[in-house]
Amino acid sequence: MSTLAIVGATGAVGTTMIDIIDSRESVPWSEIRLVASARSAGKKLTVRGREQTVLELKPEVFDGVDVALFDVPDEVSAEWAPIAAARGAVAVDNSGAFRMDPDVPLVVPEVNAAETANRPKGIIANPNCTTLSMMAAMGALHRAFELKALVVASYQAASGAGQAGVDRLYAELSAVAGQPVGVRAGDVAGALSAAGLSADSPFPAPLALNVVPWAGSVKDDGWSSEELKVRNESRKILGIPDLKVSATCVRVPVVTTHALAVHATFGSEVSVDKARAVLAAQPSIVLRDDPAAGRWPTPADVVGEDPTWVGRIRQALDFPNTLELFVCGDNLRKGAALNTYEIAETVVTSG
Amino acid sequence: MSTLAIVGATGAVGTTMIDIIDSRESVPWSEIRLVASARSAGKKLTVRGREQTVLELKPEVFDGVDVALFDVPDEVSAEWAPIAAARGAVAVDNSGAFRMDPDVPLVVPEVNAAETANRPKGIIANPNCTTLSMMAAMGALHRAFELKALVVASYQAASGAGQAGVDRLYAELSAVAGQPVGVRAGDVAGALSAAGLSADSPFPAPLALNVVPWAGSVKDDGWSSEELKVRNESRKILGIPDLKVSATCVRVPVVTTHALAVHATFGSEVSVDKARAVLAAQPSIVLRDDPAAGRWPTPADVVGEDPTWVGRIRQALDFPNTLELFVCGDNLRKGAALNTYEIAETVVTSG
Repeated sequence: MSTLAIVGATGAVGTTMIDIIDSRESVPWSEIRLVASARSAGKKLTVRGREQTVLELKPEVFDGVDVALFDVPDEVSAEWAPIAAARGAVAVDNSGAFRMDPDVPLVVPEVNAAETANRPKGIIANPNCTTLSMMAAMGALHRAFELKALVVASYQAASGAGQAGVDRLYAELSAVAGQPVGVRAGDVAGALSAAGLSADSPFPAPLALNVVPWAGSVKDDGWSSEELKVRNESRKILGIPDLKVSATCVRVPVVTTHALAVHATFGSEVSVDKARAVLAAQPSIVLRDDPAAGRWPTPADVVGEDPTWVGRIRQALDFPNTLELFVCGDNLRKGAALNTYEIAETVVTSG
Repeated sequence: MSTLAIVGATGAVGTTMIDIIDSRESVPWSEIRLVASARSAGKKLTVRGREQTVLELKPEVFDGVDVALFDVPDEVSAEWAPIAAARGAVAVDNSGAFRMDPDVPLVVPEVNAAETANRPKGIIANPNCTTLSMMAAMGALHRAFELKALVVASYQAASGAGQAGVDRLYAELSAVAGQPVGVRAGDVAGALSAAGLSADSPFPAPLALNVVPWAGSVKDDGWSSEELKVRNESRKILGIPDLKVSATCVRVPVVTTHALAVHATFGSEVSVDKARAVLAAQPSIVLRDDPAAGRWPTPADVVGEDPTWVGRIRQALDFPNTLELFVCGDNLRKGAALNTYEIAETVVTSG
């Protein structure tokens, strides 16, 4: 029997993590420790029917811990994951601090579970939520058809920016929902200001009745950090160092579930039927692809779902060996908490 | 002095058309006739300061008309544009009825104005609003760098489905805006049902707090009509019959202004600086591209604007001669009414 620690247990992802642990019986943890910053320490949360007091993040909380899950800001992970590892825990980290470290595996269990054993620093990284939304599908298609290139446009949910993002979206929606109905209504900034909303937002522009083509920080040559993560993390997870990737990351006024429009080019011949057969055989994928019956995935369908939903599979008319797909994944579950926990399960069950 | 007729004057695009005519002095029309179905005939609307009674659509309304603008359903255009042409008017049609007819030019004045003179049927077609959102930018870049391929993902506004689409989006927003705030909140369908909203919607799935990867009708092999329009109309307007195009069309909860994430590959060497110089020189394009200063276009910025706004210009890291761009265009203005009216101006001023 093993001991689990959850660092960042009181956040949006931490809360989802507890839901997931409650619903999965695969690992009979002897103890589950909930850990958070001093501000949240002392709160009471119930896990697997047992009320727990949230502990303050200190080196001693990792003593006797087998696996420590981290969902905290990059700088907190950078400091504390090595401390957990030094105390003997395997640290599974959902921040960006270690993802591209060559001595830290970046794992999606359906794609590269074996990498969890290769952890010289005692740390395993969980991918960015946008990348994760398509990895189960892309991994399966890569095994079958040899992936060569990805062109991706994202439709990213507000909860990717945490609870603050969700609160802001609802506040903005309340401000614009009562506006006069007209086709020209577009003065979102004016409506937010009239409703007394502060300009201080987790998003760099109004999100209600709008889409915002920016997520993350500014990198060289006009790229956002989020877009480069999609490229670099996809290459590492899939084990294709020269995979061609271009991503445009866009925030949309959706609470939860990231969607991606994916243009995927393969090294061998593909067809819609072959791709459907490959995807339908994956336990962690739901194929929902029958436009004539109005069946394709939308974010609202996928909230709270563990699998990645895939639909709108089309053979590109003008690009050889290329498929178009529309993929939806709950960014708090498979995109964050679920995949992190699946890594923990893999570590414990594979010894 | 010429006479103009506007058929469909009382719809969302027709109303925008009247705003545009009021704001542009380029053509001093001697008479402007407003025309609509029997249901809307008799209404009073003011154009260029003169109150007009909307006339019922009948063959005689086209007598003495030089240019007749049509914004009506495909089947109405299919029947009535030829009648207008037979009575001596040049019919400029914003429906899908004639766009791919080889004897009907498909015109974006910045790109192929000269085609307006080549109209054996007396009909000129206005492109689909999604295609139009990027044509001014793509035409300018094609002249400079020889466009070869486009991979496009759209973020399409509700008003693309007319006033009914706008009304539905606001009704849905009112139903969901008061929901309990939570990261797991995603039961949009439940909230709409609880608010008493009918399942009868212009959209094939809930649009509030959601994105819907479908627009138009079902075509072969899983493609939507909207996606094939982007391909076929881009080829015809740009005069590149073998242009490679893949589009994924997605509706988003925005009132007005379509946005497109565009991955564009060229035959000659491109750079971000060269592309910016080309786009900045176009009078109908606003370049808004400085991520470090938080400057890129969003749909809310562009509502009511005539130009196409372009930003997020990046050189693809792994694809040669390829740029990524994010383009926003008001789907009721340049995407519909403005371009239609610009065609009329071209016809009249070029004789």
